[in-house]
Amino acid sequence: MVKTKKFVVAKHFEGEPKENDLQLVEEELPSLKDGEILCEAVWLSVDPYMRVFAPTLPKGSIMIGTQVAKIIESRNKGFPVGKYVVGHLGWQTISVHNPQQPTTSPMAPTYLLPDFGELPLSLALGALGMPGNTAYFGFLEICQPKAGEVVVVSGAAGAVGSLVGQIARIKGCKVIGFAGSDDKVRWLKDDLHFDAAYNYKKTDVDTALKEAAPNGVDCYFDNVGGVMSSTILSHMKPKGRISVCGSISSYNADAKQLAVAPVVQPYLVFKELKMEGFVVHRWLDRWMEGIHQMKDWVKDQQLVYRETITEGFENMPKAFIGLFRGENIGKAVVKA
Amino acid sequence: MVKTKKFVVAKHFEGEPKENDLQLVEEELPSLKDGEILCEAVWLSVDPYMRVFAPTLPKGSIMIGTQVAKIIESRNKGFPVGKYVVGHLGWQTISVHNPQQPTTSPMAPTYLLPDFGELPLSLALGALGMPGNTAYFGFLEICQPKAGEVVVVSGAAGAVGSLVGQIARIKGCKVIGFAGSDDKVRWLKDDLHFDAAYNYKKTDVDTALKEAAPNGVDCYFDNVGGVMSSTILSHMKPKGRISVCGSISSYNADAKQLAVAPVVQPYLVFKELKMEGFVVHRWLDRWMEGIHQMKDWVKDQQLVYRETITEGFENMPKAFIGLFRGENIGKAVVKA
Repeated sequence: MVKTKKFVVAKHFEGEPKENDLQLVEEELPSLKDGEILCEAVWLSVDPYMRVFAPTLPKGSIMIGTQVAKIIESRNKGFPVGKYVVGHLGWQTISVHNPQQPTTSPMAPTYLLPDFGELPLSLALGALGMPGNTAYFGFLEICQPKAGEVVVVSGAAGAVGSLVGQIARIKGCKVIGFAGSDDKVRWLKDDLHFDAAYNYKKTDVDTALKEAAPNGVDCYFDNVGGVMSSTILSHMKPKGRISVCGSISSYNADAKQLAVAPVVQPYLVFKELKMEGFVVHRWLDRWMEGIHQMKDWVKDQQLVYRETITEGFENMPKAFIGLFRGENIGKAVVKA
Repeated sequence: MVKTKKFVVAKHFEGEPKENDLQLVEEELPSLKDGEILCEAVWLSVDPYMRVFAPTLPKGSIMIGTQVAKIIESRNKGFPVGKYVVGHLGWQTISVHNPQQPTTSPMAPTYLLPDFGELPLSLALGALGMPGNTAYFGFLEICQPKAGEVVVVSGAAGAVGSLVGQIARIKGCKVIGFAGSDDKVRWLKDDLHFDAAYNYKKTDVDTALKEAAPNGVDCYFDNVGGVMSSTILSHMKPKGRISVCGSISSYNADAKQLAVAPVVQPYLVFKELKMEGFVVHRWLDRWMEGIHQMKDWVKDQQLVYRETITEGFENMPKAFIGLFRGENIGKAVVKA
């Protein structure tokens, strides 16, 4: 019998997630049926979206999440032993899984990890995976940036924001980033070549934009929502475009006591702004296009990535909680 | 010498506009030059947008606004005596004006009032003018409503909102309106045949939408912004569309103490909503298309209009202030 370890929902999050909201349990796995594979987690992802969907999971459910896993036993010819898969297998060390079983999940179906060459497999959870596609499609399709335009990114040192800023630069835009520490700001300026970057905890956002974007902002990629985003909206140029990818500033807010921020509608009306939210799975039919383009940019060294690696499966809750404390630079991943 | 009376900015508005923020002055008008007309205001418009732009006017400037005026003297063959014009002549009784002079104003250039048949000329400031086109283009172009969809309108008994709801009904949508008095709600239900209408001062918006739109809202035409709009956004269906026409709930807010409301970004992301603000002048090249379509609907009695008429030019400030107190039903106009 093979045993797996997994994290299940013990208590629904209230405010910032706490370690004992999740419980580590051991379970025996059944033997494989036709079509199934047994796979062992190698890299696991922690992402802010999990905070939003976790309250919809019944207590006792496995925590949701994607992993890179190695196939260690297989009764599916398309998924042979020794290969790696990328799939929504949840927070567990070993999974019995049928990668071709129809599902109602909106997430990308399980796929064999494409050939990354010399690049680390963990990138399948970051620049060459869901966050990469979030940046690639969510920025280019919704903001429709043109060379020479001014682009602002919030959460700019995060998994998605750090890629958006670089894609904007590749497309010939002027890029301004906001992040939450001096280290992050230094990384954005020195390694990612943002035109300007600010620590929003030390620099007033309004003042920063008067300096860095005196003629206004064409595109805003919003990862944070809240007060900072309202301020950035007040600096948009007429007909500016806002791609709303996340609202991490309000994810931990109590559902009964919603976070508030200055009303955005006046900016939308008088600047004729267009603001659109998205979930990356709307581009599932173009998934591999995004991954291949991002891979080419990484290989050409046009695009720099960084990972914040937590060692040990049992430290997943810690890595997850760190997301909301701004502890990660680039993509947060866990090495099983 | 011809004398005119006009209202000029005496003091910039702080909070709700006050009567003595505007000053009534008399002025002698010069005689006509080639190309100019002398015209006498017949109907004058008061609109919420004036609150927003007035702070940009230097003190002593004439208050901005549109009027229907009769040509009483002319040195312009295209604009003969006895005809009526619709133009941005400001708050004054008699104007010397060159209707063909190039202008940098984004507003519609002065035009001869089209043949309205039996319909009152004042409609050129309402259903068959700027507010009508705001409803027609701003709703149809941005929301792209489909028959059978659920449409919510805030400020539903106002000049624009009352038309949007009826256009939605003509297009086969289910229409839900929010307004600020029982009289308005009765009018929306009995005369305009909204499927549902609520007095937001007495009925909780969240509860109302659970009742009237249990499966969610496809399109929202937002006239008000603020807390009510955040609540309505929380009821949108996936891929819902929001046309942001105004934000009257925050127009009187002190610029230094911005109005706040629950953060909208989480709804935008997880429902993949599209929210776009607009100013009607983006459709200037289709201006007459809107007016003719609205005129046909009014003549066919598919579209009902209502006006709140204030008598006397000197009462313009009172009519204007009334807009922010919700005193008007339908379009507020002043009879000179």
